[in-house]
Amino acid sequence: MSLKAFRNFSQIVTLAKSFEKDGRHLQPEDLSIIEQASIVFDSDEIVWVGRDEDLLNEYQSVPSEDFHGKTLLPELVDSHTHLVFGGDRSSEYSMRLNGADYQDIANAGGGILSTMKATNLATHDELFESAVKRIERIYSYGVGTIEIKSGYGLNYEKEKECSLLISKLKDHFKGQVQISNTFMAAHAVPKKYESSNEYINKEVIPLLKELSEFGIIDAVDIFHEEGYFDEVDTQQLFDVASFLNIPVKSHADEFKDNKGAILAAKNHALSTDHLLCTGDDGIKALAGSNTVATLLPGTGFFLGKPQANARAFFDAGVKVAIASDYNPGSCHCDNVLLVASLAAPTYKMNIAELWSAITLNAAHALNLKKQGALVPGLAPRFTIFDTDNLDKITYHWGVNLCIR
Amino acid sequence: MSLKAFRNFSQIVTLAKSFEKDGRHLQPEDLSIIEQASIVFDSDEIVWVGRDEDLLNEYQSVPSEDFHGKTLLPELVDSHTHLVFGGDRSSEYSMRLNGADYQDIANAGGGILSTMKATNLATHDELFESAVKRIERIYSYGVGTIEIKSGYGLNYEKEKECSLLISKLKDHFKGQVQISNTFMAAHAVPKKYESSNEYINKEVIPLLKELSEFGIIDAVDIFHEEGYFDEVDTQQLFDVASFLNIPVKSHADEFKDNKGAILAAKNHALSTDHLLCTGDDGIKALAGSNTVATLLPGTGFFLGKPQANARAFFDAGVKVAIASDYNPGSCHCDNVLLVASLAAPTYKMNIAELWSAITLNAAHALNLKKQGALVPGLAPRFTIFDTDNLDKITYHWGVNLCIR
Repeated sequence: MSLKAFRNFSQIVTLAKSFEKDGRHLQPEDLSIIEQASIVFDSDEIVWVGRDEDLLNEYQSVPSEDFHGKTLLPELVDSHTHLVFGGDRSSEYSMRLNGADYQDIANAGGGILSTMKATNLATHDELFESAVKRIERIYSYGVGTIEIKSGYGLNYEKEKECSLLISKLKDHFKGQVQISNTFMAAHAVPKKYESSNEYINKEVIPLLKELSEFGIIDAVDIFHEEGYFDEVDTQQLFDVASFLNIPVKSHADEFKDNKGAILAAKNHALSTDHLLCTGDDGIKALAGSNTVATLLPGTGFFLGKPQANARAFFDAGVKVAIASDYNPGSCHCDNVLLVASLAAPTYKMNIAELWSAITLNAAHALNLKKQGALVPGLAPRFTIFDTDNLDKITYHWGVNLCIR
Repeated sequence: MSLKAFRNFSQIVTLAKSFEKDGRHLQPEDLSIIEQASIVFDSDEIVWVGRDEDLLNEYQSVPSEDFHGKTLLPELVDSHTHLVFGGDRSSEYSMRLNGADYQDIANAGGGILSTMKATNLATHDELFESAVKRIERIYSYGVGTIEIKSGYGLNYEKEKECSLLISKLKDHFKGQVQISNTFMAAHAVPKKYESSNEYINKEVIPLLKELSEFGIIDAVDIFHEEGYFDEVDTQQLFDVASFLNIPVKSHADEFKDNKGAILAAKNHALSTDHLLCTGDDGIKALAGSNTVATLLPGTGFFLGKPQANARAFFDAGVKVAIASDYNPGSCHCDNVLLVASLAAPTYKMNIAELWSAITLNAAHALNLKKQGALVPGLAPRFTIFDTDNLDKITYHWGVNLCIR
């Protein structure tokens, strides 16, 4: 593609300073907003951003579109979803309101194992079509990069199918939505195994090795929690991933402080997610690493449970992302912008922390270092909002101002 | 209108049992769901509801529409909004995230007085048109009854204009949206008055008397909070309203327990709203009265502040409603269904409490006793959702399934 110019935005929120600061210790001014601004780019990268009145002579005749009254931001990224699943668990939401606990729901045939069953019963086409609809909806909110985890197959063949299906989704949305394929066969332990480690050794690792040959896996994730996978399982899987040259991430410290954040940081994980119970030592380990702390406030709201101590992560200089955690059980909310807008006042996040959490830092959580800010040299991945001012995007909860 | 039948809904959620129980001590089964259900009604009232297979012979030939796969509920009611206002306070949301407090915002020219200024500067047409757009959006969520408070004029002429404007909105939306016109000149004390009581006597009461002659005021509200209007002001205004035969309501106990709920109950208020700090005595007073406790969880989320102790109200047998509190400052969220869905897990509400709070009990908070449940004799005010199951409506946060 030859050069193109999008001109006269009311605001371009470049996040240039947030980018320079590697997404840490952000202040409001690190949004780096340019008023009456234009951007010049080709298919690969941004070549110029600035005030329209400063547009270089060489770009004056570049084919352009006018965006007067609109606001441009780095593309929104949802860095944690489980959106390939079969079945429907809407009744569990009502059951939970009515007082049912995890065990009651499991006894009634619900919970993650019900999604596992429904996913296994679903045909390839059913899973594909439902995922396509979900991705199209998420895209409509302004999210152009989506991470999708496998993990509801929970047996070799279906997990393989789900990972291949995510790869197929990636092809399907090429040029529109960028999809990150996360292998998460270690999501729960199938009943037929006596121990989590047996499952890791007999199915998870062999499947990862097979899939790695196709070159389709972008990251490996594991549910590192008591009653699921322990430190030994996690380290073993991380070691295999490392050998295969695939980055790792984890679900950690959600139910108790099992030092999962520390293990993730030690293993140079791209991100570690949930972190409701992470202690000061875990936060310190993350601050000293490049591992992104991905907070999932929607889950706390959805379950009516406590939230992560977000401020402690921000203040320690951790790179923090926010994601939707879209899944059929604990957070059936697919709108990361709504989730972040809702969480910001509760978390006491400033406005630069808020936007970086769903753009720059979320991209880093997916190993995407060439996006997340609108500066020359980075990819031209952005979202346009139908407003003259950034403030209005998060101000009117539930209203979608994204226009492309 | 002659009889009409809407047939074959997957579910009709009648709330019949909730209605019988006057919206108190609700259990999940008080939703009174009928499967494969039909409803027969004329323009004034519902004449029959039940399983379609039980439809009486006399109604078999009534003109009908088929609603297979859809769900019918009592019409949603938003019983607390401040949607007539001028100006824009989106920057305050960001300022607050960035650490500004109430005083900082006021010093920067924000806060309620900025809305007062902008409302006074706005022309009648500007105020009318912006309100129309807001109401249309709220209607799109399935809300067919909306309460609107005056209160951003804060001087005799503009308050009068705003109350008349709400009356004009009521006419404009006749047959589509039912609007409740609440007089709330006692929203804040204008600077020119030395005391709140002086304002009450010199402007609020005289204006109320004048407006009452037009017969357009449905209720009188007051901000009964420390630093705004005290118990003497409130009782005085309530007495005048009572003399004029206009029901009352109040904003109470938001910042501290000023016994506002008790005063409201004693005065047979339709509702008293906010109630974050209401003590056990206040809750007991409400439980022994017909005054609805209207909780406004969106405000707590929007400001990142604590929430009302909702469970205590429910458990004591108080009639509880939930409303949006849509306003430009403390809660710029116009979607009461989203607000209630978000609040339910945090508040630990059961599913009957949730739906009654935004239908039956919210209608009672507006003195509308002929709606809120789908039973013969009540008005045919309902909302249709594009789903075969109630559970799905609150399960997918932020997605609007309303189709009329």
